[in-house]
Amino acid sequence: MINTWELMARLLPIWKFIKKYNGADALCDLVAGITVGLTLIPQVIAYASLAGLEPQYGLYSALCGGIVYAIFGTIPELNIAPTALLSLLTYQYTHKVTFGNVKAAIMLTFFAGILELLCGILHLGFLIDFVSTPVVSAFTSAGAITIASSQIKNLFGLKYNAENFIQVWKNFFMHISEVQLWDTALGFGCIIVLLAMRTLKDYGEPPVSTEKTPEKSSTYKKIIWFISVGRNAMVVVGCAFMAYIFKIYDHKPFALTSKVPSGFPSFSVPLKPIEASNGTSGTDISQMLAELGYSIAVIPFIAIIANVGIAKAFAHGKVVDASQEMVAVGLCNIAGSFFGSYPVNASFSRAAVSSASGVRTPLSGIYTGIMVMLAFTFLTPYFPYIPKATLAAVIICAVVFMVEVAITKMIWRINRLDMIPFIITFICCLLMGIEVGILIGILVEVCKLMYFTSRPKIMVKKIHGRRTYVRVTLNSLVFFSSAEYCREKIFQCVLDSGQMFSLVLVDCTQTTDMDFTAGKCFESLIKDLKKIDKSLIFLASNEHISKMLQASCGKDVVICKSEEEFDVSCPGKINAVSNGDMETVTTQM
Amino acid sequence: MINTWELMARLLPIWKFIKKYNGADALCDLVAGITVGLTLIPQVIAYASLAGLEPQYGLYSALCGGIVYAIFGTIPELNIAPTALLSLLTYQYTHKVTFGNVKAAIMLTFFAGILELLCGILHLGFLIDFVSTPVVSAFTSAGAITIASSQIKNLFGLKYNAENFIQVWKNFFMHISEVQLWDTALGFGCIIVLLAMRTLKDYGEPPVSTEKTPEKSSTYKKIIWFISVGRNAMVVVGCAFMAYIFKIYDHKPFALTSKVPSGFPSFSVPLKPIEASNGTSGTDISQMLAELGYSIAVIPFIAIIANVGIAKAFAHGKVVDASQEMVAVGLCNIAGSFFGSYPVNASFSRAAVSSASGVRTPLSGIYTGIMVMLAFTFLTPYFPYIPKATLAAVIICAVVFMVEVAITKMIWRINRLDMIPFIITFICCLLMGIEVGILIGILVEVCKLMYFTSRPKIMVKKIHGRRTYVRVTLNSLVFFSSAEYCREKIFQCVLDSGQMFSLVLVDCTQTTDMDFTAGKCFESLIKDLKKIDKSLIFLASNEHISKMLQASCGKDVVICKSEEEFDVSCPGKINAVSNGDMETVTTQM
Repeated sequence: MINTWELMARLLPIWKFIKKYNGADALCDLVAGITVGLTLIPQVIAYASLAGLEPQYGLYSALCGGIVYAIFGTIPELNIAPTALLSLLTYQYTHKVTFGNVKAAIMLTFFAGILELLCGILHLGFLIDFVSTPVVSAFTSAGAITIASSQIKNLFGLKYNAENFIQVWKNFFMHISEVQLWDTALGFGCIIVLLAMRTLKDYGEPPVSTEKTPEKSSTYKKIIWFISVGRNAMVVVGCAFMAYIFKIYDHKPFALTSKVPSGFPSFSVPLKPIEASNGTSGTDISQMLAELGYSIAVIPFIAIIANVGIAKAFAHGKVVDASQEMVAVGLCNIAGSFFGSYPVNASFSRAAVSSASGVRTPLSGIYTGIMVMLAFTFLTPYFPYIPKATLAAVIICAVVFMVEVAITKMIWRINRLDMIPFIITFICCLLMGIEVGILIGILVEVCKLMYFTSRPKIMVKKIHGRRTYVRVTLNSLVFFSSAEYCREKIFQCVLDSGQMFSLVLVDCTQTTDMDFTAGKCFESLIKDLKKIDKSLIFLASNEHISKMLQASCGKDVVICKSEEEFDVSCPGKINAVSNGDMETVTTQM
Repeated sequence: MINTWELMARLLPIWKFIKKYNGADALCDLVAGITVGLTLIPQVIAYASLAGLEPQYGLYSALCGGIVYAIFGTIPELNIAPTALLSLLTYQYTHKVTFGNVKAAIMLTFFAGILELLCGILHLGFLIDFVSTPVVSAFTSAGAITIASSQIKNLFGLKYNAENFIQVWKNFFMHISEVQLWDTALGFGCIIVLLAMRTLKDYGEPPVSTEKTPEKSSTYKKIIWFISVGRNAMVVVGCAFMAYIFKIYDHKPFALTSKVPSGFPSFSVPLKPIEASNGTSGTDISQMLAELGYSIAVIPFIAIIANVGIAKAFAHGKVVDASQEMVAVGLCNIAGSFFGSYPVNASFSRAAVSSASGVRTPLSGIYTGIMVMLAFTFLTPYFPYIPKATLAAVIICAVVFMVEVAITKMIWRINRLDMIPFIITFICCLLMGIEVGILIGILVEVCKLMYFTSRPKIMVKKIHGRRTYVRVTLNSLVFFSSAEYCREKIFQCVLDSGQMFSLVLVDCTQTTDMDFTAGKCFESLIKDLKKIDKSLIFLASNEHISKMLQASCGKDVVICKSEEEFDVSCPGKINAVSNGDMETVTTQM
C-alpha cells in the first residue's frame, strides 16, 4: 500500500523538494527565474504576433505556466509559456474562425489542457516512444523553416495573407516590388545584432559552474553572458526607443505593433458561449467545437511530443515520468485558459537558458511568473512602439538554429534507412503542414518497424557431428506477422538440406513471446514435416514458451529445456566417431 | 539471368505441369472437376440470390474462374467462383446503386480484378501476414452468422429489407406473425435432409486413397460419398420437381425464384457508360465509381485474405506464392467481368471437395467450367421452380460449419491475450459490418505487436566473479519504439545495482538490427553513465551492429566482438581469488 506521503509526492512533485528547500536553492532559482524572464518577455510578445494575437496575450500566456508547473512539474529547467511552434499552429487554426480568434485560441488552450491531462491520467506516456529521432528532427527543422518563412513579410514590411510555406513564398515574390526600405533595414539590422550578441555567449560564462568551467567564473564573463542571454530584451527595448524618438519628430518609418490594454488579464470562463446581441446571432459551444475541429487534438499531440522531448533532453539520463509531465502541462493550459492564455508548452531555448543559469527546482517558474506580472503592469504602454520587423527578427533568430543540418550526415553514417522517414517527414511537413507531416512520418516509421518484425532474420545452421541436424534460431518475438514467414523458412531449409538431415531443432531460447497464430503455424509445420519423414524438436528454456508450444502442437511434441536435455532425448543416430559438433553451413535468412 | 522457360513457368504456372500432363492426371482432374461442379452449380445459384442477383449470374460468374485459374493458378484444389462472403458484400455494396445492381456488380468485379492484379504485380503478398489467425477466425465466424441471418427471411417466407445483422433480427421479430407455413416447413425440411446427407460422408469414402484409408475403397462407399457431396444438387432438383408437381395442380405454396433467360452470357465491356435515353439521363464512369466508393477496395481486400488463407491450407506446407495467387484471382475477375460475373474467389468447401476427389492439377477447373456451360445451356428453364426456402437452406447449411466455436477454447489454452483481438473482431464484424470488423481486428493486432516491440523483455544479470559487472542482453530489434525504454532500463538497473557495479556489458549478440534513434539513445546513455562514473561496453558479434554503434557513440566506445575479447579488454579489476563467474541476480524486465 502506498502511504499518503508517497501519494502526495506522486501527485504533487513539489512535495518532494519543498521540505528540503533552502536559501541557496531559492537564490539559484531566483537568478534562473529572472534570466529566463529576460528571454521570455520579448519572445512571447513576438510569438503572440506569430499566433495572430495582440502582444498582451503573449504575456497573459506566460503567467500561469511557470506557477502551475512549479507545483506539478518534475524537471526544473522547463518553463511553460508560448512557443514558436504552438504559436504557428494557433494562428493556423484560429485566424479564420468566425467567433473570433482570441476566443478560439483560449478555447483551444482549455481543450488541449483537458486532453493532455487525460493522456497523463491514462498513462499514455509510452506513445511518445513511437516518434523516432529522425521524425522529430525533420519535424523541428521543417517547423522552424515554416515559422521563419511566415515572418518574411514583417521583415520586409510587406502585407499579404498566406497560410502555408508555399503560399508564403509565392506571395513574397508577388509582392516583392512593395518592399519597405526602412522595415527591411531595421529587420536585417536586428538580425545581425542578435546573431552577433548570440556569439557573445561563447566568450562569457554562465553564473553556475559547469563541467567545462569548474572554477568560479569572473564577474566580467558573467556580465557578457547575461548580455548575450538578454539580447532579445535589449534589441526590442532599443528599437522601441528608436521608434519613440522618430515619433517625437513625427516620423513613422516602421510598421508598429498595435495599442494594447495594460494591467492584469481578467479572469473569465473559457467555455462561455457568445450570446446573441443586436444584429448578430450567438454561437454556442458545440458550434465553436465544430469549427475548431481536429485542431483540438493536434495541439496537445504536438505539445506532448515537444514537451517530453525537451524533458528527456534535460533529465540527464534519469527516467522522465512522461505521464506526470502531461498532467503538469495539461494543468498549465487549463489554468491559463481562465486568464486569456493561448496554448503553452516548454521551449528548448528557455530550458537551455534556465539550465545555464543554475536552476535547482521548478519553483524558479514562480519568479519568472512574477517578472511577467511586472511586465504587463508596467510595460504595456510602451508596446505600440515595438516595430514589427524587430519582432520578426527575434522570431527568426530564435528558430533558425532549430534547423538541424548536421543530423542528416549523422543519419547517413549511422543508419541510411532512417533517411527515408527523415526526408518524407521533412517534405510532408513543408508541403502539407507540420502536423500532417509528423503524422505521416510516424506512419512511415511504424510501417518500417512492422516490416522488420514481420521479416525477422532467422539463423540457420546445419550441424554435422555427433548428431546431424538443422538448427534454426528464432527471434525474440514470434507473432502473427512473422509466424507464417518462419514456418515457410524452416520448411524450406529442411527441404533444401536434403536427405541427410531428418531432424530440425527449433531454438526458442531467445524467444520471449509467441502468439496463437505462431502456435498454429508450428502445429501445421510439424504435420507437414511428418509427411516428408522429418521430425522437429523445440529447445525452449522459457516456461511460458514451452507451455504454449505444448498447448498448440499437442502432446507428441518434443520440447527440450536445455542443450543437455536435447543431447539425451535426441532421437537421431549418434555418430560416435566424430568428436564434438561441426557446423558446416551458417546462413542468416 | 532467368531464361525464357523459367520466366514462362513463373508467369504461367500451367507451363510447369502441362508437359508432364498424362491420361491419369486428366482422369483424376475430370472426376474432381465434375464432383466440384455438382457442388458448385446449386451453390452459385443460391449465392446469386444472396448477392441480390438473378440465378443465372451465379452461373455466369462460375464460368471464367475455373478456366482462367487453370492457366495462372498454382494450387490444384482451388476453384474460383462465387462465395458466400463475397456475395453478401456484393449485395451490401450494389443493392442501392442508382445505375442498377447488375451493372454495379460487374463493375465491382472488374475493378476488384484490376486491384488484385496490381497487388500481385507489386508483390504485396506479404501484407497477408498481418491478418492473424484469431482475426481471420472471428471474421469467418461472424461472416457465416451474418450470411445465415440474412437467409432467415427466405427460410420463413418473410419479406423485408434489412442491411445488417441487427436490422435482420429486428425485422424478423417485427414480421414474425407473417411466417409462411409452407416455406418454413420446406426450409427446415431441406436443412434436416442436407445435414443428414452431410453426415453420410463419414460412412462413405472419397475416390482417392487418403492417409486414413490407404487401401482402395469399395464402390459402395464411393457412391455414398458422392451422394453426400452431391447433396445440394439433389435437394435443389428434388424441391424444384416438387414445386413443378404442385404447379401442375395449380398450387403455389412456396415463394419461387424468378424467371431467367437461358443460354450463354453475352460478351460486354464492363466499363460502358449508361447512355442517356428518352426521359432518363445517362451515367458516366466517374459517377459510377463515385457511387461504388470504397467498396472497390474492400472486395479485393477480403478476396485476397480469403484466397491466400485457403491456398495456404491446401499447400501442405509448401510456400504459397501469394503474389501469383493474387495475379490469378485478379485475372479471373477481370475475365469474368466481360461475361456478366460478379466478384469471385476460392471457397474452402469447394477446395475440400476437390481435394477429396483426388484433383491433380488446376486444369480440373476447365472441366468444372464445361459443366457450368452445360448447366446454363440446359438447366435455366427449370430455375423458376426452385423454391427460395430451398436456396436459403443450401446457404445456411454451407456456412453454418464456418462458425468456429472450438477455436475459442484453443486460443484460451494457447495464448489468452489473443482472445482480445478475437472478441473485438467478432463483435465489430457483427455490429459494424464484416469488412469494418476485420480492419478493426487487424488494427488491434498491430497495436498489440507495437506494444510488445516497444516494451521488450530485457535480461539483466549481475555478475560477481572474476569480474563484477551488470550484463544486459538486448533483443533482436532495437528500434525507435523500444530504444528509449532500453536506455532507461539499463540506466535504472545500473543505479539500482549500487556502488559495487561500475561496469555494464550490453550484449547485442542477439540483435539483428538497430536504427538511428537507438544509436542516439546509446550515445546519451554512455554520456549519462560517465557522469556517475560508470562505464559501458558493448558485446556485438554482428558487423553491421558494431559499425552502427561505432558511428553513433563515437570513437571512445568499447565494442567487443566476443566474450574472449571482453575478457581481455575489460577494464574492471579482476578478482583473482574467485574462480569462474557467479551470477547473483537474474531478472527479466
